[in-house]
Amino acid sequence: MIVCTTISELKAALARQRSKSPNGFIGLVPTMGYLHEGHASLMRRAGSECEFTVVSVFVNPLQFGPNEDFDKYPRDLERDAALAEKNGVALLFAPSVKEMYPTKPLTRVLISEVTESLCGASRPGHFDGVGTVVSKLFNLIQPNRAYFGMKDAQQVAVIQQMVDDLNMPVDIIPCETVREPDGLAMSSRNVYLTPEQRRQALVLSETLQQAGELIQSPEMTASKLTALASANVLTAPLAVIDYVELLHYPSLQPLDPVLKLADRSDKLILALAVKFGSTRLIDNRLFQPAGGDPNVQNHDEIQASPSYSH
Amino acid sequence: MIVCTTISELKAALARQRSKSPNGFIGLVPTMGYLHEGHASLMRRAGSECEFTVVSVFVNPLQFGPNEDFDKYPRDLERDAALAEKNGVALLFAPSVKEMYPTKPLTRVLISEVTESLCGASRPGHFDGVGTVVSKLFNLIQPNRAYFGMKDAQQVAVIQQMVDDLNMPVDIIPCETVREPDGLAMSSRNVYLTPEQRRQALVLSETLQQAGELIQSPEMTASKLTALASANVLTAPLAVIDYVELLHYPSLQPLDPVLKLADRSDKLILALAVKFGSTRLIDNRLFQPAGGDPNVQNHDEIQASPSYSH
Repeated sequence: MIVCTTISELKAALARQRSKSPNGFIGLVPTMGYLHEGHASLMRRAGSECEFTVVSVFVNPLQFGPNEDFDKYPRDLERDAALAEKNGVALLFAPSVKEMYPTKPLTRVLISEVTESLCGASRPGHFDGVGTVVSKLFNLIQPNRAYFGMKDAQQVAVIQQMVDDLNMPVDIIPCETVREPDGLAMSSRNVYLTPEQRRQALVLSETLQQAGELIQSPEMTASKLTALASANVLTAPLAVIDYVELLHYPSLQPLDPVLKLADRSDKLILALAVKFGSTRLIDNRLFQPAGGDPNVQNHDEIQASPSYSH
Repeated sequence: MIVCTTISELKAALARQRSKSPNGFIGLVPTMGYLHEGHASLMRRAGSECEFTVVSVFVNPLQFGPNEDFDKYPRDLERDAALAEKNGVALLFAPSVKEMYPTKPLTRVLISEVTESLCGASRPGHFDGVGTVVSKLFNLIQPNRAYFGMKDAQQVAVIQQMVDDLNMPVDIIPCETVREPDGLAMSSRNVYLTPEQRRQALVLSETLQQAGELIQSPEMTASKLTALASANVLTAPLAVIDYVELLHYPSLQPLDPVLKLADRSDKLILALAVKFGSTRLIDNRLFQPAGGDPNVQNHDEIQASPSYSH
């Protein structure tokens, strides 16, 4: 596995790969490091679809608010490199902040509407930072496909919107959330939890599970479902709700609160953000009450880019 | 010459070209059409440096303000196609507004600071529209080099800032302003001028010419120079000044108004925007009082992108 910390090393390695294999797909898994099995599953998916998989590890200051955990965000590049190599990654790109932002960056990629609810409302400016750094990574690496976990469902929706609006030549591949055996969604931030918080954090996945049954009951509405889900989250005494919302997916626009849910054929998302102490966890589930399994992406939905040979 | 009006035709034509000539440079000349000799000179420059020259013709609604001339901006695609073909262009891309913005665009590429003076101050939102559409064109066409005229010097500075900040894999090639024999900078908007306005519009290039001599005088300062330039513009009775400013280039930050100019070795720009009736004309000149000719770009300044084979 090649490890690059500078943009010039990265470009040279990519040029070698492209000249060796002009039609080989390049896959990108953008991460903030402190990699876990969720990231590993993205790497393996990329490896199964692409000839050359790149993982980026960069804790992007632009997407953290002034009172957020940028400084204490967990980092362990040595362990990340070992995990990436074990999962078939060809190139690990781990630049410094100075390498990514050598001068004061004056350009921002701003996405509206889809960023205004959920984490966009709780973390002002967060998705501006995400859109900007993902644009930079796409321009630097020029991947054919980029892989993102659905735990950050809003991030997937925001990036797909940006790619569509700006005609970026990359296919976004959303991948199902990977969970611990007891159901907790994998996250680098899980290491912050005390044993008691960790135990109570199960309430997120349990609430989503329960909602899967509730949503099928004939009289269920958006306002009832979110009330029941909130009540269930609060059965965990340490839980402090940031948001519990049922929205359209991927537009993330609100639903009519009193319309019956059971016969809806559009995709809905129940999204949770809950704090345990100073640790903020998110989780979500997609629903399509009168449709199929919304988590299974139809492969035809991935648009072929005619500029690449498939 | 290939003419494409849809993105899918464009992508297919570019894919054919890339598979035929994987290492051949692709040059892009982005325009709003109604092409003139200024555009033609960009096409010829692209043709001399690139194997395959693309010209885009798109009057971008996003960069026009609500009271500006989007609807009446002059259009003549047939004449544009003839001029492009005559100047060696391989592909003309002329999409409709619906093709470029099939749904309400939610993403904007915003550039700060360098957009805040000159035309950015006079035309709020203008450069947001420019950054966004140029990003789209770069992503659609993926040119190795893109050619821009220095008449829109702020546009060149803004796009270079965006390319640097977002690591876009394209070299921006600024090209000298092309002028009518009597000195008037070529512009699609010149057709709006009445014969008398056209005659008086010469005051722009004459003012810039005069400034080239004034700037060398030992006691000249930024505030004196702009006062003299403004006075000279106003010798044309029909001229209404939008701005007359001397700034650093390419940062477009203000100068100390009382510092002596003659011994400055940094690049300065004198930029003019003047209305004749409802027609707004711009022109500018670069100065480097204690340096060489600031209009001659050192070829080493064009950074080689290692991802392309030069």
